[in-house]
Amino acid sequence: MQKPSIPKGTRDFPPVEMAKRNYIFNTIREVYHLYGFQQIETPAMENLSTLMGKYGEEGDKLLFKILNSGDCLAGISDEELLERNPAKFAPKVCEKGLRYDLTVPFARYVVQHRNEINFPFKRYQIQLVWRADRPQKGRYREFYQCDGDVVGSDSLINEVELIQIMDEVFHRLGIRVSIRMNNRKILSGIAEIIGEAERIVDITIAIDKLDKIGLEKVNEELRSKGLSEKAIEQLQPIILLSGTNAEKVEKLHTVLAGSAIGLKGVEELSFILDRLPYISLRADLELDLTLARGLNYYTGAIFEVKALDVQIGSITGGGRYDNLTGVFGMEGVSGVGISFGADRIYDVLNQLDLYPTDALLTTQVLFVNFGEKEESWLLPHIARLRANGIRTELYPEAVKMKKQMSYADAKKIPYVAIAGENEIAQNKINLKNMITGEQILVTIEDLLSGKYFSC
Amino acid sequence: MQKPSIPKGTRDFPPVEMAKRNYIFNTIREVYHLYGFQQIETPAMENLSTLMGKYGEEGDKLLFKILNSGDCLAGISDEELLERNPAKFAPKVCEKGLRYDLTVPFARYVVQHRNEINFPFKRYQIQLVWRADRPQKGRYREFYQCDGDVVGSDSLINEVELIQIMDEVFHRLGIRVSIRMNNRKILSGIAEIIGEAERIVDITIAIDKLDKIGLEKVNEELRSKGLSEKAIEQLQPIILLSGTNAEKVEKLHTVLAGSAIGLKGVEELSFILDRLPYISLRADLELDLTLARGLNYYTGAIFEVKALDVQIGSITGGGRYDNLTGVFGMEGVSGVGISFGADRIYDVLNQLDLYPTDALLTTQVLFVNFGEKEESWLLPHIARLRANGIRTELYPEAVKMKKQMSYADAKKIPYVAIAGENEIAQNKINLKNMITGEQILVTIEDLLSGKYFSC
Repeated sequence: MQKPSIPKGTRDFPPVEMAKRNYIFNTIREVYHLYGFQQIETPAMENLSTLMGKYGEEGDKLLFKILNSGDCLAGISDEELLERNPAKFAPKVCEKGLRYDLTVPFARYVVQHRNEINFPFKRYQIQLVWRADRPQKGRYREFYQCDGDVVGSDSLINEVELIQIMDEVFHRLGIRVSIRMNNRKILSGIAEIIGEAERIVDITIAIDKLDKIGLEKVNEELRSKGLSEKAIEQLQPIILLSGTNAEKVEKLHTVLAGSAIGLKGVEELSFILDRLPYISLRADLELDLTLARGLNYYTGAIFEVKALDVQIGSITGGGRYDNLTGVFGMEGVSGVGISFGADRIYDVLNQLDLYPTDALLTTQVLFVNFGEKEESWLLPHIARLRANGIRTELYPEAVKMKKQMSYADAKKIPYVAIAGENEIAQNKINLKNMITGEQILVTIEDLLSGKYFSC
Repeated sequence: MQKPSIPKGTRDFPPVEMAKRNYIFNTIREVYHLYGFQQIETPAMENLSTLMGKYGEEGDKLLFKILNSGDCLAGISDEELLERNPAKFAPKVCEKGLRYDLTVPFARYVVQHRNEINFPFKRYQIQLVWRADRPQKGRYREFYQCDGDVVGSDSLINEVELIQIMDEVFHRLGIRVSIRMNNRKILSGIAEIIGEAERIVDITIAIDKLDKIGLEKVNEELRSKGLSEKAIEQLQPIILLSGTNAEKVEKLHTVLAGSAIGLKGVEELSFILDRLPYISLRADLELDLTLARGLNYYTGAIFEVKALDVQIGSITGGGRYDNLTGVFGMEGVSGVGISFGADRIYDVLNQLDLYPTDALLTTQVLFVNFGEKEESWLLPHIARLRANGIRTELYPEAVKMKKQMSYADAKKIPYVAIAGENEIAQNKINLKNMITGEQILVTIEDLLSGKYFSC
């Protein structure tokens, strides 16, 4: 007999974990709706032609491919079979693959449905993605992404609203965060000014270490990467950039005076910073030049959110990209989006113990089962409780009280209702608080009012 | 340039379809919670060893299998490759497959987590399943199932509660339904009495045609299937069974007097029918001996729900099974469950136009964008509207009014708010009702109160 198990890197979600995850998703969902974002879903399987070549050579290998049904070997010759080259073999026997992220399917969706879409299109999507990565702590082969994007609008007010959305979501979840922001055009401007366009990644990595290793060591690292003394000298005001966002913007104006693209980046940043007085964020929004995520992908604003009270990587990120759909033949569609990292947010909430008890949506009251006679007396009352929105269970069998109590305990049901012969004679219920152990005799009407149940 | 498309038999869900589907799922979810059911999720991929052999030979072919990552051909010899036998080839290059239903993964879950589960375990699960069926109208290769089961309890009160759940869900959705019920043990009893245990399927199919073809033709069909004249004679009271549930039960008592299992089935049915006076169902619950779904699977009660106002197959079904987990080595776990057919419920709601407008969760008010000055004036007001739970958008660009109005129209936003120079000077907003065309000048406070917005 096989011992049942699941594929490595995948997870079952038992009730409590599931309720916690739904709490996160529902919070994100509600905030997206407040801002006019609409949910879509795309199929788990996409044609491999949609997915291949979009994530680099390594990404192609990490796609889960689905064996063609029917005669899967029809399209491959004996010679090709015996060659045993997985990279050549797979596309011959597989036409479909599992979604690797939500961005490429969304780009495909926008192009395919371009004539039905009401632009600017504010969509969000909360779906699973699959990657044949080596599983390790915190990295799974199946996980959810929660993306929100606005496509078909260049307006920077979209960036402002996405910042508000991130701020609101983490406020509602009770997670203290800082939001860091940068702009790809500023990084391009810096590279342009110092004449080292190819070394922009090395530069941001080095600058990022200033707090840890100090200015001298940063400059040493830049030197070791091959930057000229002149370039390093020009970089000094950027490395040492500090102060308020306004002060940083002012300095950048000076430093980037010779770069059109750099100044455009400063202007975009300023637009966003200028709106802050009107939107009262709870989180700090900090201009951070070392932020360079997805450098090849983003073309304007770049965002990243970090939790203040837990040591963990970024829990949300995003930015503006200028050519989402070009690869599918639709040019000139600009977009800006964010992606909430559900697994990390889950870990943060767990570590800080921030789940509200009512998020678990557990049963509010369990009725003890004493047998058929009591059961029949209870059924209409239980139906009325449920009609009043109170999550109610009747233990399905008249087993020992202790077993029924353990069931309530294990399910963290806060109240147990006892209606034996005595109580029924009085038309009352004995309500036991499972936390304090306190018992009170209550009328059915009192119970129906819901006043004993917190949520 | 490739024209983007999705695999046949799969679907994109654009915003409106998605909102409608969420309305169905949320309704089901809420009712399950009222009855103490908890949600779980299992991975999309299961080990093929978990799935194979569980759905018959045909089912094995309909499983989507996932090509092993890395060197997928490592486990297969040249001879086996050149044999080109898909049925032998697939298991050598695929270890995993996509979930085909929710039942087998749930059985696997119960066995794998038996020591953590709090029995009786009331779980529900709303997840996608995939089948490599030939796609046709109303049949997809990817679709949702919504299953609810109670495992680890033999009590028939579970059947009663599942009937209440079905009744409540369709009441909330506004779909008038009839619930039909049968019991596998009664069918076994009938077969036992007439000595034709193997022909139970033929018998139920023939009986089912009574209304359409009349008694004589039914008997002819039974004869043509090889039933003896004696058996057909014994079947007459069952074929002609009519009247109220109570009358049917009474007759069955007589007819099945010689079959222990048959009488057990009648007893189980009676238990459920006897509880009806206590639970005030809205739907009719009808005892129907022709109901025989999943004959090899169910061992007790069988349920089926049909919509009264739309011609479509059953929209929900279920029953009791006595050995869910035996195939994974855990014997004696009885369960009873139902499965809502989300796609068909969706079709019914569409045909009857039963979606409440607030289910679509669209934006409640769109603010026209007149440019940066007006935008900045609006931002704090919009933030307050959202803080008050009003789904609010600001059109992101100061384009022509007509374009902004079309956007609101296409998104079915009921109100457009206009705040140009004049309105701002008065500290007021011009609110246009997009259905009536009516415009009124309102204060910010009035707008914030939400009194203009239905939901």
